[in-house]
Amino acid sequence: MKSKFIVIEGLEGAGKTTARDAIVAVLHEQGIDDVVFTREPGGTPLAEQLRVLVKQGIDGEQVTDKAELLMLYAARVQLVENVIKPALARGAWVVGDRHDLSSQAYQGGGRGLDTQLMTTLRDAVLGDFRPDLTLYLDVTPEIGLQRARARGELDRIEQESLGFFERTRDRYLALAACDDTILTIDATQNIEEVTSSLKSALQKWLAGQAA
Amino acid sequence: MKSKFIVIEGLEGAGKTTARDAIVAVLHEQGIDDVVFTREPGGTPLAEQLRVLVKQGIDGEQVTDKAELLMLYAARVQLVENVIKPALARGAWVVGDRHDLSSQAYQGGGRGLDTQLMTTLRDAVLGDFRPDLTLYLDVTPEIGLQRARARGELDRIEQESLGFFERTRDRYLALAACDDTILTIDATQNIEEVTSSLKSALQKWLAGQAA
Repeated sequence: MKSKFIVIEGLEGAGKTTARDAIVAVLHEQGIDDVVFTREPGGTPLAEQLRVLVKQGIDGEQVTDKAELLMLYAARVQLVENVIKPALARGAWVVGDRHDLSSQAYQGGGRGLDTQLMTTLRDAVLGDFRPDLTLYLDVTPEIGLQRARARGELDRIEQESLGFFERTRDRYLALAACDDTILTIDATQNIEEVTSSLKSALQKWLAGQAA
Repeated sequence: MKSKFIVIEGLEGAGKTTARDAIVAVLHEQGIDDVVFTREPGGTPLAEQLRVLVKQGIDGEQVTDKAELLMLYAARVQLVENVIKPALARGAWVVGDRHDLSSQAYQGGGRGLDTQLMTTLRDAVLGDFRPDLTLYLDVTPEIGLQRARARGELDRIEQESLGFFERTRDRYLALAACDDTILTIDATQNIEEVTSSLKSALQKWLAGQAA
């Protein structure tokens, strides 16, 4: 099977790290062992620097919504060109913790940035590069934030209001509803149930790809 | 007179710093003493961090042309929203060492990035915000780079090929030719002549604004 780019998406506390382990287990069952992991923003030296600037800001300066979006895309294009495309080209599978859908949901939905800007920027920066599959772990902001808080300190974006995360989730759901490369997993279930749902969805998708 | 945003543009070694002093002298003659200086990329804590990343890169990682452009716009929107617009709003004049025209010339001309992308990004990020006046100091790359080299070490962008700077200058000249808010000053002359040309051009423009 040709190598694929699989992305895990969802709010803070949706269970993305656990999902990653489950994905790797399923890929291993299929004999796929050459797997590259990425996270966004980040994954290259420059992109990691941009991650710090996006997540922490600097010296109390107000980070404008547009600067945040532009830094996220700068990090993304570095990762896509320098890591993801080369990995896929040599036959490795890539499993990503977040990708473009995060920007569409958080900056487009949560921040309310203009949809036309979001689409134009995506197309201009990424061309027609898209994940083969996105597994969207759907949780309510209440549950997700409760789990994220239990893990420790929250960054600049994780400290946003509940309304911000509600708009983000609404955008995730709306985009998932009209894109058949995005599978929505109910991540409000307990961890075993989420893992089981996710594995089934992935196995079914892989079977369809191999057919 | 309503406060204005005046920008100095040109290749490395065009004489932008000397030009800045000349502009300030002319403004003082007109009784304008509240002047804010900016430089791009830079001018806010976040924008200065982005300046370092753009100019130096990091760990030998290839900085893609698109990431460079996106970081420059992230820095620009921070500067415009957090420094330039507030300064103009309180009645200060702003004198900028580079602004958007640099991206149009260096990234659009020098790097050859798609003109549609350049225009779309500018309009999406800056809206209709534009300098009131741009003084473009025109030098050949040979003369400019000779002067820049005499000053010391060159950064990542200053180390580009002569062809890069020729394309950049061509784009500067082409854009100046069709925009009457850009005045082209022959900066191949000696420093006294450049300063004199620049002062005359600015005085004439100011007289037109006051009329």
